[in-house]
Amino acid sequence: MIKGYKKIIDETLVSYFDEILENKTHLYAKKTIEAMKYTTCLGGKRLRGILCLEACRLFSNDYFLAIPASCALEMLHAQSLIHDDLPSMDNDDLRRGKPSNHKVFGEAFAILAGDALISLGAQIIADKTSKTIPNERILKAIREYLIAAGIYGIVGGQTADLEAEKSTLNLRDNEDYLNYIQTYKTGALFEASVAAGAYIGGADNEKIRILKEFAKSFGIAFQMADDILDVISTSKEMGKTTGKDEYENKLTYVRKYGLEGAKQKLILQIQSAYDILKRENLESSVLNELIEQIKKSVF
Amino acid sequence: MIKGYKKIIDETLVSYFDEILENKTHLYAKKTIEAMKYTTCLGGKRLRGILCLEACRLFSNDYFLAIPASCALEMLHAQSLIHDDLPSMDNDDLRRGKPSNHKVFGEAFAILAGDALISLGAQIIADKTSKTIPNERILKAIREYLIAAGIYGIVGGQTADLEAEKSTLNLRDNEDYLNYIQTYKTGALFEASVAAGAYIGGADNEKIRILKEFAKSFGIAFQMADDILDVISTSKEMGKTTGKDEYENKLTYVRKYGLEGAKQKLILQIQSAYDILKRENLESSVLNELIEQIKKSVF
Repeated sequence: MIKGYKKIIDETLVSYFDEILENKTHLYAKKTIEAMKYTTCLGGKRLRGILCLEACRLFSNDYFLAIPASCALEMLHAQSLIHDDLPSMDNDDLRRGKPSNHKVFGEAFAILAGDALISLGAQIIADKTSKTIPNERILKAIREYLIAAGIYGIVGGQTADLEAEKSTLNLRDNEDYLNYIQTYKTGALFEASVAAGAYIGGADNEKIRILKEFAKSFGIAFQMADDILDVISTSKEMGKTTGKDEYENKLTYVRKYGLEGAKQKLILQIQSAYDILKRENLESSVLNELIEQIKKSVF
Repeated sequence: MIKGYKKIIDETLVSYFDEILENKTHLYAKKTIEAMKYTTCLGGKRLRGILCLEACRLFSNDYFLAIPASCALEMLHAQSLIHDDLPSMDNDDLRRGKPSNHKVFGEAFAILAGDALISLGAQIIADKTSKTIPNERILKAIREYLIAAGIYGIVGGQTADLEAEKSTLNLRDNEDYLNYIQTYKTGALFEASVAAGAYIGGADNEKIRILKEFAKSFGIAFQMADDILDVISTSKEMGKTTGKDEYENKLTYVRKYGLEGAKQKLILQIQSAYDILKRENLESSVLNELIEQIKKSVF
């Protein structure tokens, strides 16, 4: 099921970009469109898109309805990677084992590609979601996307992350601060993914609240694993530069709790994600497998 | 009327940002929020917001309904200024007579501020537009905003602009190319401004099509005047670095037609904007005055 979801997301993303590239009207904007396509279609696990499709299927039994939204969320994720990798941000040359966006297209076009991905994703939810879905639900799905994109999401988390790096204050001892970074930088997009899918699938507000609680927990587990892998993996295995967190004075779970402490925290976090689903009767083979993948990546 | 519109837009923008800054949850994201506020609240003529309010008033007699959308469009405009001024783009140190965003907050936070303004604007239309407006119309207003923000608008135009600068091809003789840059870089946001206001005001599709035709014409006149002023004004008068177009090999109306030729074109373009309004019975003192202001700025 996960493989099937991933395939649909990968193929639909390519088709969306090719549709835009084939439109002769936008011939002069080609370079930015190609930069947008480059990072978005570089692969990856498509976790956000899969969460969106599965959340929709849980309530409608028809994940097809959420394909545009799932692609939109992957575009937003790609946007955050492109801008995070910029020289003035994390200055990373490698992404998914390939040169990062600005290394291929230059800084200006990488900035423009990120900018345009933010609006394109939301526009795709508006334009390509089936007209059988009420406007109110489409609007709510777009709103979740927008919140994750900005100050209440990715940008808020990245701001706190940069501030921690550059700060002379001892933010490392501030657990609240670490949680803020991770909740917003990573968690918000996972929350938006399940919420957008669930709105399109017809879920009620209470179910959406619970799914978001799960996504938040899942997101923290994901980030803990990512922090641990940055220490224990090689760049080749990860497809991105590893060992950088330490070097760049990043505030991470490993820095805060030590490697073994972070592993202990991860086990508890994974259990908490399982528990939410079980308690609320929202278990599914796809969600269980996604949690299992995080566990296997580290242990 | 124009002064009143501008005052409402200026004050509402400040109140929106203060509301976010007062929310303690986002304490750690403060620096980016302050960067967003800095450029958005730096003043300016508020042309896009005024066009939005007036378009709404034409059809509903109640411009208040479009206040959130008008502020959103000014946020999007600020976003384009922040990112355009970046070192890797136009590398401009001055904006509205003040240091540009990255000069005050640094490049990373200027990029993040721009990113977050794109989503915040759309979110404000979704959240703050009166619930008396049908969701379908709010969705359409947001769609206009998103289109102007991305590859079909600002980003598309800026891409073509950068390509022209860096290209070894002789794009200067390509009138089609010059029109593309101006239509998308400047015109798209004017079109979105009238369309968003008109949707919220309840206009039918035909009236919106005509208003967009006017906005396109108005936008070209505005850009012609801007190109002319870049040559004939001082930086102090303009509040931004002038004379840069020539220096940076920018493709402008003055470069293409010469100073006198561009002035002739501007006169025709202003007449065309007037004609559209007259022909369609959409004249209003506000729209007439906005056109008149462009004329007076040059002649």
